[in-house]
Amino acid sequence: MALFKIVVAYDGTDCVGWQRQANGVSIQGLIEDALRVLDERDVPLHGAGRTDAGVHALGQVASFDLQRALPAGAIVRALNARLPGAIRVLSAEEAAPDFHPRFSARRKTYRYRIWHADAINPFESRYAWHVPGQLNVDAMRDAAALIAGRHDFAAFQAAGGSTVTTVREIFESRVKLSGELLTYEVTGDGFLRYMVRTIVGSLVEIGRGRQPVDWIGRVLAAGDRALAGPTAPPHGLFLVCVGYGAAVAGDS
Amino acid sequence: MALFKIVVAYDGTDCVGWQRQANGVSIQGLIEDALRVLDERDVPLHGAGRTDAGVHALGQVASFDLQRALPAGAIVRALNARLPGAIRVLSAEEAAPDFHPRFSARRKTYRYRIWHADAINPFESRYAWHVPGQLNVDAMRDAAALIAGRHDFAAFQAAGGSTVTTVREIFESRVKLSGELLTYEVTGDGFLRYMVRTIVGSLVEIGRGRQPVDWIGRVLAAGDRALAGPTAPPHGLFLVCVGYGAAVAGDS
Repeated sequence: MALFKIVVAYDGTDCVGWQRQANGVSIQGLIEDALRVLDERDVPLHGAGRTDAGVHALGQVASFDLQRALPAGAIVRALNARLPGAIRVLSAEEAAPDFHPRFSARRKTYRYRIWHADAINPFESRYAWHVPGQLNVDAMRDAAALIAGRHDFAAFQAAGGSTVTTVREIFESRVKLSGELLTYEVTGDGFLRYMVRTIVGSLVEIGRGRQPVDWIGRVLAAGDRALAGPTAPPHGLFLVCVGYGAAVAGDS
Repeated sequence: MALFKIVVAYDGTDCVGWQRQANGVSIQGLIEDALRVLDERDVPLHGAGRTDAGVHALGQVASFDLQRALPAGAIVRALNARLPGAIRVLSAEEAAPDFHPRFSARRKTYRYRIWHADAINPFESRYAWHVPGQLNVDAMRDAAALIAGRHDFAAFQAAGGSTVTTVREIFESRVKLSGELLTYEVTGDGFLRYMVRTIVGSLVEIGRGRQPVDWIGRVLAAGDRALAGPTAPPHGLFLVCVGYGAAVAGDS
């Protein structure tokens, strides 16, 4: 038996999300189906995190045990040959026996894409939230900076969330504007369900002038989901990468 | 009556192409349907060129007459409200009465996108031709340069093409590599059917080492379609822009 780590990119448009479910096509389910053919038995797949329906990934990480000894390149080719084009295994490598994609993860980076123009570019409609009208990007940038640091993010989790602790540390939280594309990029030691999308929905409230910049600090302090902005739609969200080991420049 | 010029972007993945056809969804047909609602009568739409099934556009140009006097901004909003997200009208303006998108065009620019890696990025599978394996990009670059100039492109048109003249002038013809994305960009005074895709198919033959660089010149000189490379698939091709008036820097 050998433990393998894979990095996976996927277009989540037509999926019910990462996690295998009774109804609907899931990323985990499709990869497990491909692994079953490869290893001629059920092979459970462990992911670094569950992405919701419609959310994409550029660098999701997952692991599995194989009884067949296969070179990493052969695993990549065999899985991609069996997976639909919307899911691509980018790399595979043998991992240390104690590696776990979720428990070993030190940080994750998410990117949220907003198309800020009267009409959305047709090539972006599956991959960006269309937000027309005026946006105060400077105010959004200032509010994003207030997210960085160690906070209780109870106000930014899915309604009815039941995590043991809702405290997370955010290492970087930035808004960038490039032409008509507005991106929010956030790196932290972990994220609650819907957390990034609720932060983005709140930043857009500030961008639209419906709330002042310092409102985001008051929402954090109050810890009440009802106070935060709406949850931004899933199709603008990308899991960019999952980091293991100590952070070094260029590592993620 | 007023003549309007519009610039349109579309994802051609799910369409039979620009031109209205008896069966299948066409870009022209969808825009004409939207215009009929807007002007309460049949409004014929004229395009700068017919893109084939699966081909995309970033800046297709089309024109139509409206009997209703409407500001350009209202036309953009009304059409986009009725069109599917895969087609977006980017701008509208009133045109001179003698303007015709096809006959007034002085030049067109096409871009062909190739994903040159073992596995295609899942976000590129609809918008790039996946070409794995070794490619001699320098040889492709040299061969692309031989396409520039005034030539008879009979060897690079669709089999059975019956255009009056197959001579076209190519102002620019370039291969660029950026990471895993290889692009071929070509600007000319006009293009024959399948011409860009046949040039690309031929450049890839050269990149794979199946033909030498100067073979492209011999194919041009012979004028025989049977000698050129295969036609590259449609989904990598984008009509970038259509230029009117004298060429000036930054104008297209």
